[in-house]
Amino acid sequence: MQVIKQLSKMADFSLKLRRKGRKIGFVPTMGYLHKGHLSLIKQAKSKNDIVVVSIFVNPTQFGPKEDFKNYPRDFKKDKWLAAAFGVDVIFYPAVKNMYPAGYCTYVNVEELTEGLCGASRPGHFKGVATVVAKLFNIVQPDVAYFGQKDAQQAIVIKQMVKDLNMKVKIEALPTVREKDGLAMSSRNVYLSKSERKDALVLYYALNNAKALIKRGEKNSARIITAMRKMINAKKTARIDYVSMVDAGNLKDIETIKSKAIIVLAVKIGNTRLIDNMLVGV
Amino acid sequence: MQVIKQLSKMADFSLKLRRKGRKIGFVPTMGYLHKGHLSLIKQAKSKNDIVVVSIFVNPTQFGPKEDFKNYPRDFKKDKWLAAAFGVDVIFYPAVKNMYPAGYCTYVNVEELTEGLCGASRPGHFKGVATVVAKLFNIVQPDVAYFGQKDAQQAIVIKQMVKDLNMKVKIEALPTVREKDGLAMSSRNVYLSKSERKDALVLYYALNNAKALIKRGEKNSARIITAMRKMINAKKTARIDYVSMVDAGNLKDIETIKSKAIIVLAVKIGNTRLIDNMLVGV
Repeated sequence: MQVIKQLSKMADFSLKLRRKGRKIGFVPTMGYLHKGHLSLIKQAKSKNDIVVVSIFVNPTQFGPKEDFKNYPRDFKKDKWLAAAFGVDVIFYPAVKNMYPAGYCTYVNVEELTEGLCGASRPGHFKGVATVVAKLFNIVQPDVAYFGQKDAQQAIVIKQMVKDLNMKVKIEALPTVREKDGLAMSSRNVYLSKSERKDALVLYYALNNAKALIKRGEKNSARIITAMRKMINAKKTARIDYVSMVDAGNLKDIETIKSKAIIVLAVKIGNTRLIDNMLVGV
Repeated sequence: MQVIKQLSKMADFSLKLRRKGRKIGFVPTMGYLHKGHLSLIKQAKSKNDIVVVSIFVNPTQFGPKEDFKNYPRDFKKDKWLAAAFGVDVIFYPAVKNMYPAGYCTYVNVEELTEGLCGASRPGHFKGVATVVAKLFNIVQPDVAYFGQKDAQQAIVIKQMVKDLNMKVKIEALPTVREKDGLAMSSRNVYLSKSERKDALVLYYALNNAKALIKRGEKNSARIITAMRKMINAKKTARIDYVSMVDAGNLKDIETIKSKAIIVLAVKIGNTRLIDNMLVGV
């Protein structure tokens, strides 16, 4: 396994392989790899000739009061895990090379980024779309893999690729959970022991909603009310949003018909967690 | 010469050629080709294996009160000219395929687009950067050619390519002028006979500035005042801006040192014309 830090070296590496007709699978990450990332890597490995994983904690997707500085990092462990899973290249660029002095270009997927996480994290998806566009141009993958846990992110990236006519296929893979149901996230490490227990309420509330729907409930407002009640029963929990949205355009749904997704963001103590579940009838 | 209208067909065409190692030169235009465009095509022809010219009047770079609908179009003549100059492919996409329903992604080069034409045409460069990013992703050129007449546009595109790590080389070629000095522009066709005469004042004012600088004048304000006076002497002329800026970052310059550019935009009657000249000591 190679670790490539230089942008031009990464681009040259990919160009050579693509010229030979080799298929490149790409897993963009902010590092601190967990089983969610590893499931993406496994899939990339099984479907491509070469797997590139980027590790880059992207400053432009963090708000000024967010956790960019404290975001967990462990490159040594990431490197070990990536090698163990057969990754061919870790692309590990420096912030000053990704955003040199005078940098001023941003990609913005409008509309889809106005609600949900976009509303509570202004500029977040602009940072995400921009860095992903840059990474795609450098790594030139055939397929890129994202986790369904970041549901809005996956939809935003798919829209960007379609709108800007990028030649990358986007695959969103199912959320990987801890044994007890908590969605894997690098930020779970922030949780205290008791918060870790409380955090499970996200999964429980989503499951409860699914059960309600199975029993015939179709009214979005009633489902959300039930979820909010469950979550608010935890003293450490502060709801950012709980919404039932169309899985394609992220618009609020009043009555469930077909492909819907329940999305939520909740602060447990100081840690903001997100989760979601596909539902539908 | 082929005319390709479908986006996927254009992309496939380019992909096949690039796989064979052929070099693609690209000239993006809004059609109504004049000698300025033809100088770009000639240069592309001499430096590449294949020349692609796009003809697309891009709605997203026109303001709501601007001339999108009336922008001059003559595809038949363009086709004839392109063929005569050895163009291999005209890429001629439909608006509804470039911006299908639900389209919402935009590329914005901030800072560089705030002043000059960006100030008087809000959203213009966002539209330009977006369509050029799309065209680059579809056509996948090795080199793309732009006219120096649109000085701010060339700088904005260069910055976008650098910032987003696009694999395209940008060449900005010298402004081509009519025999009397008027910069070639598809919009010159809007001018009445008397306006056509008045329009020459742009070129005269730039030349006068150059002469002043040659005689030792280094103060930007004095040079601009002299230019404004000349231009305002024409009754049909309304100045949008006359500025002396750094050729790299487009920031205003008080005293000329090295690479500077004098840029101007003036309405002659109802026709907005731009021009510029590199100066410096």
